[in-house]
Amino acid sequence: MKVDGVAYRTIWRQGPSVEVIDQTALPHVFRTVTLESADHAVQAIGTMIVRGAPLIGATGAYGLALAAQADASDTGLKAAAHALAEARPTAVNLRWAVERALKAVLAHPVSARGRAAWAEAEAIADEDVAFCQAIGRHGRELISKAYDGSRPVNILTHCNAGWLATVDWGTALSPIYAAHEAGIPVHVWVDETRPRSQGAALTAWELLSHGVPHTVIADNAGGHLMQHGQVDLCIVGSDRTTAHGDVCNKIGTYLKALAAFDNDVPFYAALPVSTIDWSLERGADIPIEERSAKEVTQVCGRTADGRIETVRITPEGSPAANPAFDVTPARLVTGIITERGVAQASREGLLALYPEQQEAAE
Amino acid sequence: MKVDGVAYRTIWRQGPSVEVIDQTALPHVFRTVTLESADHAVQAIGTMIVRGAPLIGATGAYGLALAAQADASDTGLKAAAHALAEARPTAVNLRWAVERALKAVLAHPVSARGRAAWAEAEAIADEDVAFCQAIGRHGRELISKAYDGSRPVNILTHCNAGWLATVDWGTALSPIYAAHEAGIPVHVWVDETRPRSQGAALTAWELLSHGVPHTVIADNAGGHLMQHGQVDLCIVGSDRTTAHGDVCNKIGTYLKALAAFDNDVPFYAALPVSTIDWSLERGADIPIEERSAKEVTQVCGRTADGRIETVRITPEGSPAANPAFDVTPARLVTGIITERGVAQASREGLLALYPEQQEAAE
Repeated sequence: MKVDGVAYRTIWRQGPSVEVIDQTALPHVFRTVTLESADHAVQAIGTMIVRGAPLIGATGAYGLALAAQADASDTGLKAAAHALAEARPTAVNLRWAVERALKAVLAHPVSARGRAAWAEAEAIADEDVAFCQAIGRHGRELISKAYDGSRPVNILTHCNAGWLATVDWGTALSPIYAAHEAGIPVHVWVDETRPRSQGAALTAWELLSHGVPHTVIADNAGGHLMQHGQVDLCIVGSDRTTAHGDVCNKIGTYLKALAAFDNDVPFYAALPVSTIDWSLERGADIPIEERSAKEVTQVCGRTADGRIETVRITPEGSPAANPAFDVTPARLVTGIITERGVAQASREGLLALYPEQQEAAE
Repeated sequence: MKVDGVAYRTIWRQGPSVEVIDQTALPHVFRTVTLESADHAVQAIGTMIVRGAPLIGATGAYGLALAAQADASDTGLKAAAHALAEARPTAVNLRWAVERALKAVLAHPVSARGRAAWAEAEAIADEDVAFCQAIGRHGRELISKAYDGSRPVNILTHCNAGWLATVDWGTALSPIYAAHEAGIPVHVWVDETRPRSQGAALTAWELLSHGVPHTVIADNAGGHLMQHGQVDLCIVGSDRTTAHGDVCNKIGTYLKALAAFDNDVPFYAALPVSTIDWSLERGADIPIEERSAKEVTQVCGRTADGRIETVRITPEGSPAANPAFDVTPARLVTGIITERGVAQASREGLLALYPEQQEAAE
């Protein structure tokens, strides 16, 4: 999408390297980082220079291309693939993308693996863009139906499932961009999304940069807005979705789903098929990443005179806990928007869109 | 309660002056401020050096004592009372306390008014402490019942309804202090409570200072903890409660009540009778204060080298909205803990504890 009028992706090949947007510097500074090795890619994923399940997946694939460039032996590639796949524990896309890329690359003789790895990474990235665009088209219909001609459609979103979380367009935000491009007036309630504040930092930044009307709110405010008719629908992303439609997403998603259900506000999760874990029945079985307590006790931002500072908001000595994701049970999810359409959040609903997964979901 | 082993109230007379704890400096610096005039008291309320409805009320009464010391004429006292009552126009307790003190003082001849004003302020403060202690006793029973002998009772609270919000003991935290004093092992999940982060700053500080085990969490985390059996009960305060038991409290309270209901976790509001608005039927009729967007876009804290800095977390140009309270419908509230006992969150339940309010609640 656009930054100052220029179209960008979040990741792209540049000669023998890979360029990514440094998401730790946003919203205050827009800059790119050059990844020159698979280790760089592992670091970029681990330190959240890149984040968002689909983008992490693409970075894993590009990371394998960087690895193949340096050492295309079976041993070298497998070691790199292992390190890349382990860089973040919860994202199912990462493992999927790295395994897909590894399989594709190993099918070639060593001499052809470098080129094959780049081709596979580009294919995964292009496919992600195409999937996100398709999610946008299907989700746009839901927004279009919610438009009554009198006021913009108010959409609440949590965390960042925008183009910054993918290669382009985004998952949860793709329908919003698609509606905006189609001339449907939209307004987005942007959950701050503590502890890392990806909503306030990233979602607000990308909507502002692309020109989509929005308002940042504390995570605490969404329920109140729904009680007062200020939210027409919710659209969130997902890091992992079970075969039964339980949606694992950024911590706090479950609370918004409860409020939506309590106020008859439709609640959608938008995600590509790679996010669905067909082997998982119960959302409660998804292991939840516990991240550093510092993300809770400290906040990073920009001072009035332009310095980037990290400040502690808790008393020294108070411990903090930081579960990074929660699971929203399927019963609270109105529908799941994928690249193939809008499915009911159930085994039957998902299999109706993906009949070829029948066996995997047994 | 205790700070470094020394028992404190949030406000007390010291000779011809009044001492208060400077709550704008917490959790980073513990210091007191001396109020030498009614004007000082007005400033302390307006700048939130003191905050929390019961403490604001007590400060209003002490402010009138400072006024009576300087000028005990009818004109002087009425002018001071007016200025004090207007220092935070939304706080109901403030007007109530100032009017009560003024009435008591005006009943005396001018020469006796100074002494009478101090006595009334002390009476209001002592009464607040007694009410909070009674709330603590009743609430302690609920915590005691939840203790199974195997692990500490996990209690989640939102915002700060602790001793810092009152003269001593607090409302929501009073049962926790009472249980702790009685030797019942407790552990408190402290909601950060954006946008002002009173949980992370004040609740964590007072629990730490008094030695009560606690963990700070993002506002987004409570639902997940409840899904995983990590919360035995929730206790929150209230700024205003309707005759039917709808609880108006800090924004985000409603979301925690929804999660508690969804996971069969008991959800209590603890409040003195002065918080109940017997003339209000529907919580939806309570006007909700919209505060400055800067509370959402900016965060204040302490840098690693000890400076207090304010940082912006949103992109420049993104608007923010900041509704300060929400209303939790009575159907989600397990019970209301008052100085008289634990009531069902309903008209019948509240009137059973306060039969003398029958007429007011008609």
